Amino acid sequence: MSDSTTAEDARYMALALELAEDAKRHGEVPVGAVVVAKGRVVGVGQNRREADADPTGHAEIVALRDACRSAGRWRVDGATLYVTLEPCPMCAGAIVGARVARLVYGASDLKGGAVDSLYQICTDPRLNHRLQVDAGLEAERSASLLRAFFKAARARPRRLQQR
Amino acid sequence: MSDSTTAEDARYMALALELAEDAKRHGEVPVGAVVVAKGRVVGVGQNRREADADPTGHAEIVALRDACRSAGRWRVDGATLYVTLEPCPMCAGAIVGARVARLVYGASDLKGGAVDSLYQICTDPRLNHRLQVDAGLEAERSASLLRAFFKAARARPRRLQQR
Repeated sequence: MSDSTTAEDARYMALALELAEDAKRHGEVPVGAVVVAKGRVVGVGQNRREADADPTGHAEIVALRDACRSAGRWRVDGATLYVTLEPCPMCAGAIVGARVARLVYGASDLKGGAVDSLYQICTDPRLNHRLQVDAGLEAERSASLLRAFFKAARARPRRLQQR
Repeated sequence: MSDSTTAEDARYMALALELAEDAKRHGEVPVGAVVVAKGRVVGVGQNRREADADPTGHAEIVALRDACRSAGRWRVDGATLYVTLEPCPMCAGAIVGARVARLVYGASDLKGGAVDSLYQICTDPRLNHRLQVDAGLEAERSASLLRAFFKAARARPRRLQQR
């Protein structure tokens, strides 16, 4: 767990983990996300790629679109996004584009993560926005949820695709 | 213009440019995109970030979601995506995620492009999919459309944000 996370962060990450668990129950890769602004939840998301037949249906994108729809604007300045897994390039780019102020994520994604692992998109000084990143909050719980999901998926007839 | 583009490519890029022109008429950053599979258009998009208050409302994402909605699945294997401007990190990531087979883009985006300029997300061997990229088709027409848009936006009271 990152030293710079608080009890409030833990509460929001617990909500993101609940959303991930719910995604799993619907046969989706278990990732959940929450957008918080001014001390309240303004957007929630879980992976819905299969349900919506949408390649952009990752938890972070679903949560950002939810927050923006409510706010009636395409920016969430000042907001914190909590997500159980390190964002991929698409989601890291969306987080920068939406002007998220802070990202708190759980497990690292060594094969596809674009915040720390393969790229550092959220902190790239060449892009038009950068943000604070706190990694590792509830990393083990998030990672074990994903491991169990993919283990079960491999044991079933091939239908689910890797995230 | 890239040597590896065809008359068919030129026709689809012309359609993408028409979509970009239309976006401009609605006060959106003029970028257009078309998804083509098996010789027909299966998705179209133009920048709708302002209209939809959606940080993910870039032309490429709108076109991919359109194509996937019609197909009822989150992948567009074998498809070509035409877009007037080099994709940003979010869009390049979405293009990889949707398993697009080929990307044809117009103008380079030296400040934010993630296909050739700042990153090479669509051809990164570490990611789970790579694709063919042909750059520079109708680059000057696309770039001049964008230049004119931003020049006019700067002359007006500040309302529009840079893409």
